[in-house]
Amino acid sequence: MQLGTCYYPEHWPEAQWEDDARRMAELGLTYVRVGEFAWSRIEPEPGVFTWEWLDRALDVLHAQGLRVVMGTPTATPPKWLIDRHPDILAVDENNQPRRFGSRRHYCFSSTVYREETRRIVTAMAERYGQHPAVAVWQTDNEFGCHNTILSFSACARKRFQGWLEKRYGTVKALNEAWGNVFWSMEYRSFAEIDPPMQAVTETNPSHRLDFRRFSSDMVVEYNRIHLDILRRLSPGRDIHHNYMGCFTEFDHYPVGDDLDIATWDSYPLGFLDQSRYSPEVKRYYLRTGHPDFAGFHHDLYRRVGKGRMWVQEQQPGPVNWAGHNPAPKPGMVRLWTWEGFAHGAEAMNYFRWRQAPFAQEQMHAGLDLPNATPAPVQTEVRQVADEIARLQANGLPRTQQADVALVFDYHAQWVFEAQPQGRNFLYFDTVLEYYTALRELGVSVDIIAPQDSIKGYRAVVMVAQAHVPEALAGELTQEQTPVFIGPRSGSKTVSLCTPENLAPGPLQALLPLQVIQVESLPDGVVEPVLLEGDAAGSVVRWRERVVTELTPLLHFDNGDGALFRHGNAQYLAACVDGDTLRNLLQGFLGQADIDTTVLHKGLRLRRLGNWLFAFNYGQDKVQFAPQGQCLLGSEEILPADLAVWQMDSEA
Amino acid sequence: MQLGTCYYPEHWPEAQWEDDARRMAELGLTYVRVGEFAWSRIEPEPGVFTWEWLDRALDVLHAQGLRVVMGTPTATPPKWLIDRHPDILAVDENNQPRRFGSRRHYCFSSTVYREETRRIVTAMAERYGQHPAVAVWQTDNEFGCHNTILSFSACARKRFQGWLEKRYGTVKALNEAWGNVFWSMEYRSFAEIDPPMQAVTETNPSHRLDFRRFSSDMVVEYNRIHLDILRRLSPGRDIHHNYMGCFTEFDHYPVGDDLDIATWDSYPLGFLDQSRYSPEVKRYYLRTGHPDFAGFHHDLYRRVGKGRMWVQEQQPGPVNWAGHNPAPKPGMVRLWTWEGFAHGAEAMNYFRWRQAPFAQEQMHAGLDLPNATPAPVQTEVRQVADEIARLQANGLPRTQQADVALVFDYHAQWVFEAQPQGRNFLYFDTVLEYYTALRELGVSVDIIAPQDSIKGYRAVVMVAQAHVPEALAGELTQEQTPVFIGPRSGSKTVSLCTPENLAPGPLQALLPLQVIQVESLPDGVVEPVLLEGDAAGSVVRWRERVVTELTPLLHFDNGDGALFRHGNAQYLAACVDGDTLRNLLQGFLGQADIDTTVLHKGLRLRRLGNWLFAFNYGQDKVQFAPQGQCLLGSEEILPADLAVWQMDSEA
Amino acid sequence: MQLGTCYYPEHWPEAQWEDDARRMAELGLTYVRVGEFAWSRIEPEPGVFTWEWLDRALDVLHAQGLRVVMGTPTATPPKWLIDRHPDILAVDENNQPRRFGSRRHYCFSSTVYREETRRIVTAMAERYGQHPAVAVWQTDNEFGCHNTILSFSACARKRFQGWLEKRYGTVKALNEAWGNVFWSMEYRSFAEIDPPMQAVTETNPSHRLDFRRFSSDMVVEYNRIHLDILRRLSPGRDIHHNYMGCFTEFDHYPVGDDLDIATWDSYPLGFLDQSRYSPEVKRYYLRTGHPDFAGFHHDLYRRVGKGRMWVQEQQPGPVNWAGHNPAPKPGMVRLWTWEGFAHGAEAMNYFRWRQAPFAQEQMHAGLDLPNATPAPVQTEVRQVADEIARLQANGLPRTQQADVALVFDYHAQWVFEAQPQGRNFLYFDTVLEYYTALRELGVSVDIIAPQDSIKGYRAVVMVAQAHVPEALAGELTQEQTPVFIGPRSGSKTVSLCTPENLAPGPLQALLPLQVIQVESLPDGVVEPVLLEGDAAGSVVRWRERVVTELTPLLHFDNGDGALFRHGNAQYLAACVDGDTLRNLLQGFLGQADIDTTVLHKGLRLRRLGNWLFAFNYGQDKVQFAPQGQCLLGSEEILPADLAVWQMDSEA
Repeated sequence: MQLGTCYYPEHWPEAQWEDDARRMAELGLTYVRVGEFAWSRIEPEPGVFTWEWLDRALDVLHAQGLRVVMGTPTATPPKWLIDRHPDILAVDENNQPRRFGSRRHYCFSSTVYREETRRIVTAMAERYGQHPAVAVWQTDNEFGCHNTILSFSACARKRFQGWLEKRYGTVKALNEAWGNVFWSMEYRSFAEIDPPMQAVTETNPSHRLDFRRFSSDMVVEYNRIHLDILRRLSPGRDIHHNYMGCFTEFDHYPVGDDLDIATWDSYPLGFLDQSRYSPEVKRYYLRTGHPDFAGFHHDLYRRVGKGRMWVQEQQPGPVNWAGHNPAPKPGMVRLWTWEGFAHGAEAMNYFRWRQAPFAQEQMHAGLDLPNATPAPVQTEVRQVADEIARLQANGLPRTQQADVALVFDYHAQWVFEAQPQGRNFLYFDTVLEYYTALRELGVSVDIIAPQDSIKGYRAVVMVAQAHVPEALAGELTQEQTPVFIGPRSGSKTVSLCTPENLAPGPLQALLPLQVIQVESLPDGVVEPVLLEGDAAGSVVRWRERVVTELTPLLHFDNGDGALFRHGNAQYLAACVDGDTLRNLLQGFLGQADIDTTVLHKGLRLRRLGNWLFAFNYGQDKVQFAPQGQCLLGSEEILPADLAVWQMDSEA
Repeated sequence: MQLGTCYYPEHWPEAQWEDDARRMAELGLTYVRVGEFAWSRIEPEPGVFTWEWLDRALDVLHAQGLRVVMGTPTATPPKWLIDRHPDILAVDENNQPRRFGSRRHYCFSSTVYREETRRIVTAMAERYGQHPAVAVWQTDNEFGCHNTILSFSACARKRFQGWLEKRYGTVKALNEAWGNVFWSMEYRSFAEIDPPMQAVTETNPSHRLDFRRFSSDMVVEYNRIHLDILRRLSPGRDIHHNYMGCFTEFDHYPVGDDLDIATWDSYPLGFLDQSRYSPEVKRYYLRTGHPDFAGFHHDLYRRVGKGRMWVQEQQPGPVNWAGHNPAPKPGMVRLWTWEGFAHGAEAMNYFRWRQAPFAQEQMHAGLDLPNATPAPVQTEVRQVADEIARLQANGLPRTQQADVALVFDYHAQWVFEAQPQGRNFLYFDTVLEYYTALRELGVSVDIIAPQDSIKGYRAVVMVAQAHVPEALAGELTQEQTPVFIGPRSGSKTVSLCTPENLAPGPLQALLPLQVIQVESLPDGVVEPVLLEGDAAGSVVRWRERVVTELTPLLHFDNGDGALFRHGNAQYLAACVDGDTLRNLLQGFLGQADIDTTVLHKGLRLRRLGNWLFAFNYGQDKVQFAPQGQCLLGSEEILPADLAVWQMDSEA
Repeated sequence: MQLGTCYYPEHWPEAQWEDDARRMAELGLTYVRVGEFAWSRIEPEPGVFTWEWLDRALDVLHAQGLRVVMGTPTATPPKWLIDRHPDILAVDENNQPRRFGSRRHYCFSSTVYREETRRIVTAMAERYGQHPAVAVWQTDNEFGCHNTILSFSACARKRFQGWLEKRYGTVKALNEAWGNVFWSMEYRSFAEIDPPMQAVTETNPSHRLDFRRFSSDMVVEYNRIHLDILRRLSPGRDIHHNYMGCFTEFDHYPVGDDLDIATWDSYPLGFLDQSRYSPEVKRYYLRTGHPDFAGFHHDLYRRVGKGRMWVQEQQPGPVNWAGHNPAPKPGMVRLWTWEGFAHGAEAMNYFRWRQAPFAQEQMHAGLDLPNATPAPVQTEVRQVADEIARLQANGLPRTQQADVALVFDYHAQWVFEAQPQGRNFLYFDTVLEYYTALRELGVSVDIIAPQDSIKGYRAVVMVAQAHVPEALAGELTQEQTPVFIGPRSGSKTVSLCTPENLAPGPLQALLPLQVIQVESLPDGVVEPVLLEGDAAGSVVRWRERVVTELTPLLHFDNGDGALFRHGNAQYLAACVDGDTLRNLLQGFLGQADIDTTVLHKGLRLRRLGNWLFAFNYGQDKVQFAPQGQCLLGSEEILPADLAVWQMDSEA
């Protein structure tokens, strides 16, 4: 449980550095990230390197005992490099180059840029790979931010063709896999295939899905360029990348497999503003953020990091990039920090040390005001540092496997984007709704990938899992682990076609049923789901028509089955509203012998080893009294406050 | 009264074909459309034709007695053709080519593509022109789908200049017709004239109107390329094109004049979702479609087909292309089918035989599920087939001329697009509102073009008929046929200028009044229309200030006249809400001695010869008892059900 | 107090001209604008001038004693000129040229077009510079209309680089001023700098602000091309340009400094439709326009014109360019005309004499109908002419300095656009809200620029004045003039960075306080502002956290201060709703010894010398009885009516 921050010595007079470093240390910070975005200061002219300033900055930080997270500066190639090699620029779907003037103006497929990346990362690793202050490396910064994963450049076209050839072997196999006979879209060679762009109407969804996969693989390849160099020149250091919230443009699992730690950038209020929650929900959580947004991502990135997770950028005040940017309620920065630790974060690092007085992010708050005086939030950071110090006296617990696994799959998100079928049935939002329902029941959750084993879990939940790998279906069948399966699962092959046995495809081994028709419904249409004729909940957005010999547990208004059970597996043939979903999952978890309780609005629990955390995102004072010794707070939890207990039992 | 479907043998294993054909025949189907979209299978390499598979498919269908509608594959030129001739691609209004990857990626003006069209259609007609299975040809598929009528290519520019020269003779005449003296837009030669694109603000509306007319004429020319070949190589076969719903991008009347039958593609639920009806209306008709949408188009395309009309694609289940895609209420596929026949359809063909398991339309339901088992909807198709068989024993009636003619004009739609004046006053929607008001009164309607004679009609209705041809105004004056004229009629010359005598232009021969001012009103503004000071209805969206010596029948809140009558002609100087409009039209029809009755919500009637059909789109059970012998159903008509009577009288 | 109109003799048969001129004179009109847009008639072929028609037109107008406002035709370069020099075209932010077909299709930076402008203006001035009918020149027409200030052409890029070099001297200074070290955006030479376009995400806001300033300076330069020629060839004539409403794309103050008169084009109903007022407000003022829209612009352009202001285009009926175009309520054209005079207009000119029957503006009403008969509105114009004649018998008053100055700054608008921070906190709208609050209190207002002296004002109001010049802050401190300062004032340096002493920057000399945090709040969030714990108003959209030793006058719900006073200065640390703002300003004005009264809804007052005007925009009859002699109307003012009193006191 470490605290840290992000620091840009190049933004400040050198005379300021020492005072900054001293105050960081005094505040209880351990980690300081530097270097990302600094290319124009490291190499101001082609081939001319000016390391000295950075040498001195590292020395100053090191002298205060701070541990440096060194970022490679590849997110911001300087103007001279772009002018020399304009083909570094990504090309948008309208065939326009995305020009210099902000950041991330490069194409992951650019051969020139890959070479330039090797050059600058090698130079940096040679200089600092063995530096005693450097503890961790960060590759690049926020891959994909500002819609930069997809590029339609000539380089991307060429690599895409090669990627397809590798995947399919022959163009005939590709034509069959995509169903290109439809609309005479058949190709005679891989060289004929363009990225899906500027077409008259939608392109083949299989084409788009594969272009997404290809683009995601380009990120994996690009990230590995860094790794090969850093592993060689800076052995013994952890390497991470800082991912984002609500971001699905590339598959994070293989990128994470290559790295040591998954870190992410957590901005609860900015994300809330940009989310699709209703205005009422947004107003209620205006200065706290939604209670499940950070938790979901902590759990997701803990999986991406194979158990090791940080927050590399934690919001410390109002940000600049949302439509509206309120200030966190007093107490929330402390709450968010503790919540990260409760979900297994090794470090919680605030972005940024000091608010910049210039350029794009000058309205983004920091721990310091622009005039180098502490912002009020430092008192909350100081409080967390003190609390950690106090609690760790008796040893800190570690994350253990949760009872419940929730499947999250980037490819499923792409399937929904390539082929929505209902405008309001979205993959990410739906998984998040399931997460919320589980968390409102007081349950701790592990996010797993569809390729993961489910061993050790007492229950598995999946929804909208468009393509279910045979291995997962097989393990579920073999283990008989209780599983709750939401609509549209198993509805697609890996190539985004309809399975020969129809949906839910391989899950039919678990549940003998077939989906023969689906309906998407506009917002405002609410239809009942019934238990022997009595209202038992509300269907919204989506319903399916199932043929089966099973007797349904619940049915629709026309008598068709809505919820089915076979052995330990349940299948829900509809989207339902939040209350209905929570009720259904409570029933399911009960059958799996997992304790649940419906928590007070805004309250969330999280187990970390034998500690139990309770976080109050709501506007009410909440009474909560578990069986254990209170380590922090009390049984009366105020809004924006938390409590921690050491529990008698392990789980 | 034939039934049929659309079939893509190239999508399925050849071993499946025979079973498919047999089951089609057993279901009662007569027509099977094949071939459109199959170019890449017919000519997989330039000049290499592989007819054999299609030969065998035709043989299989023929063996079951099915009659083939053969589509030319020109809507989907293959990749090799585009790569050889990129100037086939249409160019959008942002000057970007519209690339390969879906369908309809060609410019109607492209000289190369016209030549390629001749080549492939000739090859196909030579192969199958005399084939015994081929009963009907379809040219291309859904001209204009996905916004493909307008192209701003170099070819289009060149042809547009020639088209203008032919229309105006001299550039001076063009400058005068368009009023190009305004803003110094005068041209010195036709070669200076560009398509209306990328201008700083709106271009001259006359310029845009003529570019629309030109683009529409390109469709006529392009369609004729097919006809010249097919008439020569496949004599004796009918030729049709399948039009779309709610589609006005080209003038369908001249295209229809060249063909034998007008067919259209009817998707009541998809159209409802995409329509501008209120959320309440959309929810009420969620699984039935709006009761006037299909009827309006049946009546429109019956005129386009000069009396001969089919539905070439009838929705059999959820579609894939609307924002939300619900399933038809059980019974509706039967109802829609019968409604088509009631409006004069010769054939009702379902799209498609089997749901595809791949590519863009894999979520579009068919009569078969993707796994080659019947979808439940087949029972409704079977029922219709049986009902036809039973009823035709006594002979089937034929469409006769209706009492009421409603004018529909594609050019008026373009005038409203080129010069809206009020954002919420739309031509198509307004004509549809008038149609609804007439149909809620139980009246059968013929749609007529403005160039048509009104002989034989007992009443004529027109609204927003921007340019009224002299011939129509003259015939109305001469015949003294009762006519109800809605706002903005006669407000423009053929060149989209203001008539010298102001609106309603030539209609002043009928009604001595002049419109000296118009107002457009935002949604939410509702103003009364009054009868001697008492409320008589509601004005919305539009009102006009009229000078006349006539005493108005109704007046506005400021005392100005709102409804005028002179002889048998009425002029309504405003848009009004639906209830007001129905009341006014009931009064008008009463004066024309046409019987009306306000039908129960969702009920619609249609006369076909001496048969009377009643269709219940609503959610209530309806009692309806006309004077006649009940052939189908009963006097109690359930939701999604219908009834048919043989009437004592002829009309 | 003159009346006038806009006339296009080239649009009408020459035989019509004399009747037109006669009727203009009889109606009481003095001024007639001609010539703008007529380039293709003046020079139909390159170098071939056809002046004769315009000679004759001027003679006809002169014969009736009409005074001609001669417009240069540069807003509409003809097609032959564009085809010869396509680089005249502006280029949009997507790098697409903005093509011929409407108007304003030129780039202010185009070297070729500047030369062509010199050529045509010289030719025109040589021909008519000494013509006895020509009293006034208008340069071009509505600079910037249709989003034409910004151009991203090669010419603009080149001139932008030169402009930057002149402003910053060295690229190092530029990098520092913009903070380009952020995200490695540093340049090595001015030649590397592009316009801010097509970047991956937002460009540096300082970059964008300077591109706005540059683009604005191009307008100044372009306008001066006209002036140099006209001053030389047409001495003694006034020169004006006709500005627009709600238009902030260039800085009008320096353009105005070069001209003799500021004129503007006032379309109250079109502007209302396009405004951001709520639907309720828009319905209430549907046919009157918002009561502050014209007044605000009159006051603004009176400052731009250094005291001399006209309305060059006054709406006389429905326009064609808004989403919906209602007709003015009878009486409003007279009211708007008198209101212009009350705010100091020297002339009120109606657009246009006769409604055109062709081209883009054929639905724009004029004083004449298209068929050359008078529109009903002429009776209102005639009435104003008669009233002026009657009133001027005793001499007309002149505008004097108002008590209250309200600061308006184009650069502040650009700061808000470059860096919004809260989507709903807009500069223009906020200043207009303050103007409304002042006007609802019956106060007459002068708009001043931030570079202006405040001498002679009894109170100053500023809000959202992002950069406060040192001179203004200094004068306020020195004069101790009462000043009310709204949120976000003084928050930026001239380069759009954060001041070293934080907001409100130089205003801290007036008020010892610092803003350490700001919050932007979405619509629907309303928080109380309190006076010693009791509700005293509503905060919306924005609040600030202030550190100070001052005791706040009002505070937020968390106890933080909301309104501060020090000496004669007040600082409001939030946006508030309209009622709250009016209350706070009433308190402030009271302390400044300025009389206020809360006017009846829709009523507005304006002092002109010793006359007091009252205008009723509302729907109620209003009683209003000031101390003075009633010159026009009475103490009972009907809707859409006005009254004028000669007051006993001077102010």
